[in-house]
Amino acid sequence: MAVNLFPPEPKALHPVPGVDLGVAMAGVRKANRKDLLVMRLVAGSTAAGVFTANRFCAAPVLLAKKNLKRYKEIRALVVNTGNANAGTGDEGLARAMQVCEALAVHLGCDPGQVLPFSTGVIMEPLPAERIIAGLPQALLRQANWLSAAEAIMTTDTVPKAFSRKISLSTGDAVVTGIAKGAGMIRPDMATMLGFVATNAAVSRKKLQNLVKIAADRSFNCITVDGDTSTNDSFVLVATGQGPAVASKKDLLVLEKAIVEVSQQLAQAIVRDGEGATKFVTVRIERGRSADECRRVAYAIAHSPLVKTAFFASDPNLGRILAAIGNAGVAGLDTSRVDLYIDEVLAVKGGGRNPSYREEQSVAAMKKPEFTVRAVLNRGKADATVWTCDLSFEYVKINAEYRT
Amino acid sequence: MAVNLFPPEPKALHPVPGVDLGVAMAGVRKANRKDLLVMRLVAGSTAAGVFTANRFCAAPVLLAKKNLKRYKEIRALVVNTGNANAGTGDEGLARAMQVCEALAVHLGCDPGQVLPFSTGVIMEPLPAERIIAGLPQALLRQANWLSAAEAIMTTDTVPKAFSRKISLSTGDAVVTGIAKGAGMIRPDMATMLGFVATNAAVSRKKLQNLVKIAADRSFNCITVDGDTSTNDSFVLVATGQGPAVASKKDLLVLEKAIVEVSQQLAQAIVRDGEGATKFVTVRIERGRSADECRRVAYAIAHSPLVKTAFFASDPNLGRILAAIGNAGVAGLDTSRVDLYIDEVLAVKGGGRNPSYREEQSVAAMKKPEFTVRAVLNRGKADATVWTCDLSFEYVKINAEYRT
Repeated sequence: MAVNLFPPEPKALHPVPGVDLGVAMAGVRKANRKDLLVMRLVAGSTAAGVFTANRFCAAPVLLAKKNLKRYKEIRALVVNTGNANAGTGDEGLARAMQVCEALAVHLGCDPGQVLPFSTGVIMEPLPAERIIAGLPQALLRQANWLSAAEAIMTTDTVPKAFSRKISLSTGDAVVTGIAKGAGMIRPDMATMLGFVATNAAVSRKKLQNLVKIAADRSFNCITVDGDTSTNDSFVLVATGQGPAVASKKDLLVLEKAIVEVSQQLAQAIVRDGEGATKFVTVRIERGRSADECRRVAYAIAHSPLVKTAFFASDPNLGRILAAIGNAGVAGLDTSRVDLYIDEVLAVKGGGRNPSYREEQSVAAMKKPEFTVRAVLNRGKADATVWTCDLSFEYVKINAEYRT
Repeated sequence: MAVNLFPPEPKALHPVPGVDLGVAMAGVRKANRKDLLVMRLVAGSTAAGVFTANRFCAAPVLLAKKNLKRYKEIRALVVNTGNANAGTGDEGLARAMQVCEALAVHLGCDPGQVLPFSTGVIMEPLPAERIIAGLPQALLRQANWLSAAEAIMTTDTVPKAFSRKISLSTGDAVVTGIAKGAGMIRPDMATMLGFVATNAAVSRKKLQNLVKIAADRSFNCITVDGDTSTNDSFVLVATGQGPAVASKKDLLVLEKAIVEVSQQLAQAIVRDGEGATKFVTVRIERGRSADECRRVAYAIAHSPLVKTAFFASDPNLGRILAAIGNAGVAGLDTSRVDLYIDEVLAVKGGGRNPSYREEQSVAAMKKPEFTVRAVLNRGKADATVWTCDLSFEYVKINAEYRT
């Protein structure tokens, strides 16, 4: 049911010099499906990440954060699906470390130079022995980025990968990334799982800055169901095998490509949102701060009543106004709020626009993609959030998942 | 689909001396359905209310708040369904005042002594002329409390009314109330619509205190879909026709009855929650403050993933842990959190209880009512929230409502 989302063309995904990919069927939860990805990085590679703000953050998240802090050089990422290794306590941490240690032996590096990631069911013990047994298979065969994107899917219906070529003053470089996610999606400082790599040579400090910028403009602007996952992780890798970032302009070119790839990945998660039939851009303009605009945007994007109205292509605009009124914006003067569905001005000054006819917004909302734009008229800030509708299929998927 | 909720027995609903009820079919939105309730109050009656915190609060809410502040004596409440008169600006306010003025002429009182209430579709002009035309019908015939409860239903499937007899030191009195609501339910200082009346003679100041206490222990503890309505109103009426509250003990007896009737009404709204198949009590214990316990309880009760798991009777407890982790409780030590489904200890110290078997919680969750209890082990505060599941029917109702 993904909205305008198609599997990427393998040819459109540029390999990243310095990154070797391998996938395996380790049988983590089910047999005969790709559920293990190993991303080997050439010596000298650096990485930076942002991670979930959920207090019940998963064991691999704790370990990846710790390793990123302690090691400048990162040599591998290892990702399993089928089991999130969250809500598993000290035992979960020990099992995540076993996986890192086993991979480090294969690669001849320090276990701390391996970043572990897990996604899947929460509160089940991680079958570390099966993952470890699958490592040789993943290391033996070279995979491409499409195959890597497939290996990290859970309830996703379409693999998610995007790629850009850029020209720096010192030569050409690439930015390629993959992501997964369809449910439990309301990233807070990161996404479910997103990995973006470049061969551009950029300092670790700049990389840390870039990962925050990219997350804030992509994964931190999406929501499917408002549930922030325990395992959200977004990691940016620079192998240093390509041209150096030698100027401010180079850095901006690289930043633009990283933000674009990250936004495409983030939007792909929403397009593939559980049960999604609509891809909706919620844009809030002329608020006092970006924070209050984001709060209003999320109040709309999280309202089950608004989301079911999206599903029905029903311009039940009162539900959107009610959501705006619920966003907790102090001193909001509702008599100044305007509301547009695409280009249709439906609400003017807090009430129905006299010339508005409902057929206009029905026509807009029947499309698979449209924009809800609220203008608060009290400041100069704005914010954008991408979301999807709430359909029968969402309930079906989540009432049936796992059981 | 209401969960263990049955229409009240008319005999069990004690009339309140000093309150005269009348209902009519005014054709506000649809013909041939009761959609207008007039509650006449004897001279000398007082009232107190709590109202929605939604910034887009409806015209009748603004007017009722203003009238309650300015007039000590309240002579009537007038309630229409079919149209919420919200998001209607100054024109909406003018129409609500027209209704109050027309009723005041019938009753020979000041228009400011009439409290107006509306519920239904948002952002449509209130057909004040049809409501005014329906007033004589409502005033001519005496209705009982069951009929009054029926007249304020919208997507409700069962009328909601409860009643208590109490003995004060000065004589016997009654407390009787009605409420409506099934969707857009996450009251914040009030509920969709709730009206509780007593003939006990109690001061206006005490009444204002009682309405807050009752709201905080009832309507402010429920959620269906997390959407706070634009029209939430809860009003407590005292006609003064019965015995006086003459002692602290009398006040406590009255308070207890008002809280009980309010809780029954509030729980009835959840039992009749749109598409509800389960009635779930979420109880958070041993938090640092009631506020943080409430935040955790609502994080669980609002999570679509948790709610669909309730629907499926699926003890996907990781989703509950993830919701707890998302509640924004600073410094929460997840390794101290215990989680019970009814009496089953499923999570101990943040991880799976070794002796826990999933069949135990499946058995509990298959019942139409059960309790999710999280013990944070970091303080002495607690909080309870009542909620329901998220079913196919919820999506169906809200994707089809209005269109």
